Amino acid sequence: MTEIAELTAAVREFSRERDWEQFQDPKSLVLALVGEVGELAELFQWVPADEAVDRFAVPDRRARAGEEMADVLVYLVRLADVLGVDLGAAARAKLADSHRRFPSADVRGVAPHKP
Amino acid sequence: MTEIAELTAAVREFSRERDWEQFQDPKSLVLALVGEVGELAELFQWVPADEAVDRFAVPDRRARAGEEMADVLVYLVRLADVLGVDLGAAARAKLADSHRRFPSADVRGVAPHKP
Amino acid sequence: MTEIAELTAAVREFSRERDWEQFQDPKSLVLALVGEVGELAELFQWVPADEAVDRFAVPDRRARAGEEMADVLVYLVRLADVLGVDLGAAARAKLADSHRRFPSADVRGVAPHKP
Amino acid sequence: MTEIAELTAAVREFSRERDWEQFQDPKSLVLALVGEVGELAELFQWVPADEAVDRFAVPDRRARAGEEMADVLVYLVRLADVLGVDLGAAARAKLADSHRRFPSADVRGVAPHKP
Repeated sequence: MTEIAELTAAVREFSRERDWEQFQDPKSLVLALVGEVGELAELFQWVPADEAVDRFAVPDRRARAGEEMADVLVYLVRLADVLGVDLGAAARAKLADSHRRFPSADVRGVAPHKP
Repeated sequence: MTEIAELTAAVREFSRERDWEQFQDPKSLVLALVGEVGELAELFQWVPADEAVDRFAVPDRRARAGEEMADVLVYLVRLADVLGVDLGAAARAKLADSHRRFPSADVRGVAPHKP
Repeated sequence: MTEIAELTAAVREFSRERDWEQFQDPKSLVLALVGEVGELAELFQWVPADEAVDRFAVPDRRARAGEEMADVLVYLVRLADVLGVDLGAAARAKLADSHRRFPSADVRGVAPHKP
Repeated sequence: MTEIAELTAAVREFSRERDWEQFQDPKSLVLALVGEVGELAELFQWVPADEAVDRFAVPDRRARAGEEMADVLVYLVRLADVLGVDLGAAARAKLADSHRRFPSADVRGVAPHKP
């Protein structure tokens, strides 16, 4: 089982054990994801853009950012599971598609739209 | 290499080949993540909550949702990479912490705050 | 002076008195807005969709929702001010445009895309 | 009638004429707000932080930013209306509260948490 599938199974089991599946319809999960993205945004909002990497190199702050990103990922895999989406495969397909849409030679030096 | 580490490496290489790393400071990546979460939210906004799972069982809509979730994941792994965060490990640590904070017997039947 | 212009002036003065204008570049303000939208989303995430209005009719919860919406509005008017956008005029122009794009007779009974 | 109350009444009437009120429960409106915030974020994501004000001084880009901010405001006033929240009063109360929590002399030179 791949890492994302394992995480998905673990989050599903965690939800099932607590009878939380009843609350986890897609709209609720998207709102929960938005809440976590909001907490992530708050960590960075007043940090000067060119100092952000250095400031978050401090172990406590890096760990804090990691926790918020983990929250985002947990809700994302839960949403994918509820919708029957294979998230890992979708990400690989998206990246393959980006390779087609943005051939590396053509876009060098051009501002990105999507990594 | 784990699945998330492989995806992280692939997104990093994709960014490097296009000289896009210069644009991918943490604040910019959080904004890009927000943009993708917004597109995900738009898919669900007017769908009745109790019909969302069924409506997204249609292959085209499921694929569309998968693409938006993939975009969120791609920016999330890129942000984690820029910050030196091990996202897979952070997610597992978070889930272990949730097990401690929400023992399954105590909370059964209680509305969830965090899965 | 209109209500939105008054609010804009009050927020600007508040920021100026605290020397906070230096932190309030557009990207930072959008991230701050995202943080507040996240807090608003958290209030609603696990509430059943068809019970949300009733549950938030309780004065304490309504007040709490009002505070989060106020935070969103405060950052929105601050962002508009920093960008030189007349937010009230923009909203009226948008609504006029929506009247043109969605004539009421044609769309009756059809799912909305944008109010 | 104040400006925000007028805008609220206009958006309510617009929704009523199209029978869209049935779709505009609070969770759906928060998701719609998130969608618009996402579009706003996309405008700024790859712009260097210290160039954002200048780049958006160009009339077309300023107008575009104004439209996205207008969309956010329209959904915000609609949500407030559905919840029975007086948004203008809430914003003024919030600002008065911020004056109490952040007396201007004490915080001068200190990084802001909330404007």
